[in-house]
Amino acid sequence: MRNGIAKGKQSLGFAEAPYLLSAGTIVGQKESQGPLGKLFDERGQDKNNLFGKTTWEEAESEMQKRACLRAVEKSGIPKDKIRYLFGGDLLRQGTATAMGIESLQIPMFGLFGACSTSGEALALASMTVAGGYADYALAVTSSHFGSAEKEFRFPLGYASQRPLSAQWTVTGSGAFVIGCEKSKVRLSGVTVGKIVDYGLKDSQNMGGCMAPAACDTILTNRKDFGQDLEAYDQIVTGDLGYIGSTILLELLKKNGVDIEDRHMDCGKTIFDQQTQDTHAGGSGCGCAAVTLGSYVVPKICKGEWKKVLFVPTGALMSTVSFNEGESIPGIAHGIVLEHAG
Amino acid sequence: MRNGIAKGKQSLGFAEAPYLLSAGTIVGQKESQGPLGKLFDERGQDKNNLFGKTTWEEAESEMQKRACLRAVEKSGIPKDKIRYLFGGDLLRQGTATAMGIESLQIPMFGLFGACSTSGEALALASMTVAGGYADYALAVTSSHFGSAEKEFRFPLGYASQRPLSAQWTVTGSGAFVIGCEKSKVRLSGVTVGKIVDYGLKDSQNMGGCMAPAACDTILTNRKDFGQDLEAYDQIVTGDLGYIGSTILLELLKKNGVDIEDRHMDCGKTIFDQQTQDTHAGGSGCGCAAVTLGSYVVPKICKGEWKKVLFVPTGALMSTVSFNEGESIPGIAHGIVLEHAG
Repeated sequence: MRNGIAKGKQSLGFAEAPYLLSAGTIVGQKESQGPLGKLFDERGQDKNNLFGKTTWEEAESEMQKRACLRAVEKSGIPKDKIRYLFGGDLLRQGTATAMGIESLQIPMFGLFGACSTSGEALALASMTVAGGYADYALAVTSSHFGSAEKEFRFPLGYASQRPLSAQWTVTGSGAFVIGCEKSKVRLSGVTVGKIVDYGLKDSQNMGGCMAPAACDTILTNRKDFGQDLEAYDQIVTGDLGYIGSTILLELLKKNGVDIEDRHMDCGKTIFDQQTQDTHAGGSGCGCAAVTLGSYVVPKICKGEWKKVLFVPTGALMSTVSFNEGESIPGIAHGIVLEHAG
Repeated sequence: MRNGIAKGKQSLGFAEAPYLLSAGTIVGQKESQGPLGKLFDERGQDKNNLFGKTTWEEAESEMQKRACLRAVEKSGIPKDKIRYLFGGDLLRQGTATAMGIESLQIPMFGLFGACSTSGEALALASMTVAGGYADYALAVTSSHFGSAEKEFRFPLGYASQRPLSAQWTVTGSGAFVIGCEKSKVRLSGVTVGKIVDYGLKDSQNMGGCMAPAACDTILTNRKDFGQDLEAYDQIVTGDLGYIGSTILLELLKKNGVDIEDRHMDCGKTIFDQQTQDTHAGGSGCGCAAVTLGSYVVPKICKGEWKKVLFVPTGALMSTVSFNEGESIPGIAHGIVLEHAG
């Protein structure tokens, strides 16, 4: 018997589900000062978020390494038992991940799914453990405000004005150990996203670009698993922020679905919009990962939420594609997490 | 019973191995004029390799789409039966893949492993089919000389002189349909690579940067599967080129292993170094993919080679990491392909 059970067009259930054994989170100074500040494992105190390094890129790599080591330590599993690592980031050619996890010497699969990468990594790590390919696997993603602004926008020294629809890239990294041993959080299924393109071209309104993909993945999850979305105590989107979340809720309502009473968005949760000047909310691969690890997973562990659909969303673009006039399609992957009593 | 059989530290064998059902290949003009020219499914005739588009990035995306459609057509499997797609390229934020496969509307996992991505995609597609997660999956990668020079080096208009150690990025895309139905090529195992860093920093000598990773993966494959490398009729590296191949053979000899009589490198095979002015050989995600699809796979189908180890190698760098003085580590994934009688 094989362990994957195809559900509908895009989803998988696991006959024997893998477990989320631990999460390691590390964030920068601004995130430490936000509403979730005290929940993170490690909090940078340096306003440049350099974590003892000389460049933002090195700092981001350092965060990935520390998040991985923290997750492994918390899992109680010896590092050399972690068979495969799935990781990615937002930088060109994924160098934050390559340089960050190099010293761990774990065989690795490099991923790119923009800000949906945490979902992609969790999906593949779960499939790998559930398929009997590994007893333990690591999933890690990161983003850094400094390296992301440099990669996608303007040199910080220009002090460019940000439109109100812009989001603030989270400085942070979240790592997760997935294993076959029982824990309090079961990864029971995944819905793999496809690319959804509404033709939007505004790279300063990522939430708007990604909302249709989140809508598509949530509706597909409902259809594939043949269950109403009321089955979830919470539906957690990655970093749609204020604008994208509003669009998502409207798109779902047009499809006859209302999740307003059970929806949260990591980009809205991680910062205090009123006092932290973060405009439309947080974003970046790290946003969903550290919010999941520090805030969502503990609630599932305690049984406060019995079943959660985690849907990080990514905007598929580069400065080159943007400058060439391409639209910014989105992608979102859905991960079903359940309290295991 | 689960289908993955862990072999040693990094490798997997499949209890029920998946099959490679078809390969679709498309290349540019220079590749069409090379030694393998007649073997490719589609050959660009335009010296700018634009494939009817206006930018090199769009052209690369167009190649990915056509390679996928060609592979699907050759497999005889209806497109809507292809459950998941694994794809990547060399461009920042993987836009060649995102823009290329968008219209296919297949749920997708975006990958980045530099020029090792074809191996990464084949490994994950095989694991997905063998794990019972999909009956059919697609693996696709691409590279384009124009978009790669723009991404990594100098504007082509500068006509910069290339050192003799530089490689020529292949304009091409290769796609593969992996499935559970029997064909003449069985994907019997994988060795997932880890990052290997000898501290080299010369981005104009990629072969030298990647050779240690190829050596590591080949030796690990031998150890994990507990068999001599004579078990393989051919060991096919991705794009080490002339310099990297020489280094690989020397490194292996230092470890007491000689594969010279059974080694080929796609970067040495795809161009005629004497007449095509390609210096140290071909490179790019597309190099290994189109050589595998057009030259290696047919030999395995015919039984000319019974067992092949395919080892595409990647150099993990970006212009930012290079400019910040980081070294260029390598990674290589090994795929075991066998003739199925």
